[in-house]
Amino acid sequence: MRYFIRFSYLGTDFHGSQTQPNGITVQEVLENAFATILREPVPLTFAGRTDAGVHARAMVAHFDYHDPSLDQRFAQRINSLLPYSIAVQDIWQVADDCHARFSAKEREYEYHITASKDPFLYGRCARVAMPLDFVAMNEAAQTLIGKHDFASFCRVHTDVKTTFCNVTYAQWEKKDDTAVFTIRADRFLRNMVRAVVGTLLDVGRGKLSLSDFQRILTARNRCAASQSAPACGLYLTRITY
Amino acid sequence: MRYFIRFSYLGTDFHGSQTQPNGITVQEVLENAFATILREPVPLTFAGRTDAGVHARAMVAHFDYHDPSLDQRFAQRINSLLPYSIAVQDIWQVADDCHARFSAKEREYEYHITASKDPFLYGRCARVAMPLDFVAMNEAAQTLIGKHDFASFCRVHTDVKTTFCNVTYAQWEKKDDTAVFTIRADRFLRNMVRAVVGTLLDVGRGKLSLSDFQRILTARNRCAASQSAPACGLYLTRITY
Repeated sequence: MRYFIRFSYLGTDFHGSQTQPNGITVQEVLENAFATILREPVPLTFAGRTDAGVHARAMVAHFDYHDPSLDQRFAQRINSLLPYSIAVQDIWQVADDCHARFSAKEREYEYHITASKDPFLYGRCARVAMPLDFVAMNEAAQTLIGKHDFASFCRVHTDVKTTFCNVTYAQWEKKDDTAVFTIRADRFLRNMVRAVVGTLLDVGRGKLSLSDFQRILTARNRCAASQSAPACGLYLTRITY
Repeated sequence: MRYFIRFSYLGTDFHGSQTQPNGITVQEVLENAFATILREPVPLTFAGRTDAGVHARAMVAHFDYHDPSLDQRFAQRINSLLPYSIAVQDIWQVADDCHARFSAKEREYEYHITASKDPFLYGRCARVAMPLDFVAMNEAAQTLIGKHDFASFCRVHTDVKTTFCNVTYAQWEKKDDTAVFTIRADRFLRNMVRAVVGTLLDVGRGKLSLSDFQRILTARNRCAASQSAPACGLYLTRITY
């Protein structure tokens, strides 16, 4: 019996999503709660990785378990064992060949920036000086739409077979002293959104022109792009199956 | 020369607003930053107190200083010395007889509740099981409007001369799994909003009727009211002069 769970977490408290030897991760904490309640180890397969400090409003994972009766009450029991910084929102049964990672059709991320010093946004928003030229940033963002090789925006030395992604949406929306960049694609490479945002911010500051940005995209070389934007502004917001 | 400053803080990090011997407070941290930049002690007079864990989006304080040129650049210098959890939003000159506390005409608080386990609301919202009868809660809240003796909703053994307050607005607004209670009055007693919210929540749960609530208000006895709602849901949101 295969289940999907959808859950959110505050990335600030974790060394990323996937289990690793150096620090506490979302996967480790979730799997410990599962093992406590189900009294056996139940490995979770995440839809994707998020780096240290990156938040998720709707991460998805799958697991297999023999009991077909797991439901919302099970999610509540798991929540009661989890720290405040992770919450399971939903659990549902899926077909046995449904895979949290490989069956995903589209993923959505948001990147949040603010110009103000705001105690309530600290660790949840990157602080970026404004004004920024949001018209130019959106013109550049539009050139990302479609299927492109995103090697310029991918952490080097990753073991992916291809660096092609099909971006279906990429748009900045400004509201008062804050702005949100939303991007959707069939898949994302490691560090991709933060590298794209860092480069778009340089367009907004007038350091890069639209043609500079296009040249960076076609360079297929991480050194061509700007510095990555900080992890704290990034949210995984949706995975569509 | 008298100045007003408006500032926000995340209450989680502080043992309340006013300087006290037992823990770090907003006033102490602000006055330290002032003393560092102005090279002399400058006492701040706050518009009011907030208890440990209570947040402020717009607290006001006044101070006197001989130099008439303090402006937004001064606020930025102060901000650069403050921790992330306090931010000065504005500074402006006022008449010498303007007093942050005594000249205030109206104060506004919000109380935020949520029914969900949400990592992003932890410490910023009280978690309260729903459904709640918001119609009954708003009926009860309307009986608070006007000038009443709020002794039933005031921490005992406080040294105030009168427990009369003139409430001008009191309303719950619900949105999905969260709700916000907004209350405005000329003055508030210690613990008043949290005691009012705790008692209104018991109305929403059906434990108290409208007439019970009215009896509590007229009892002028703190023991008549319900338990205070937790500090983390409370925000000082506006002070009008």
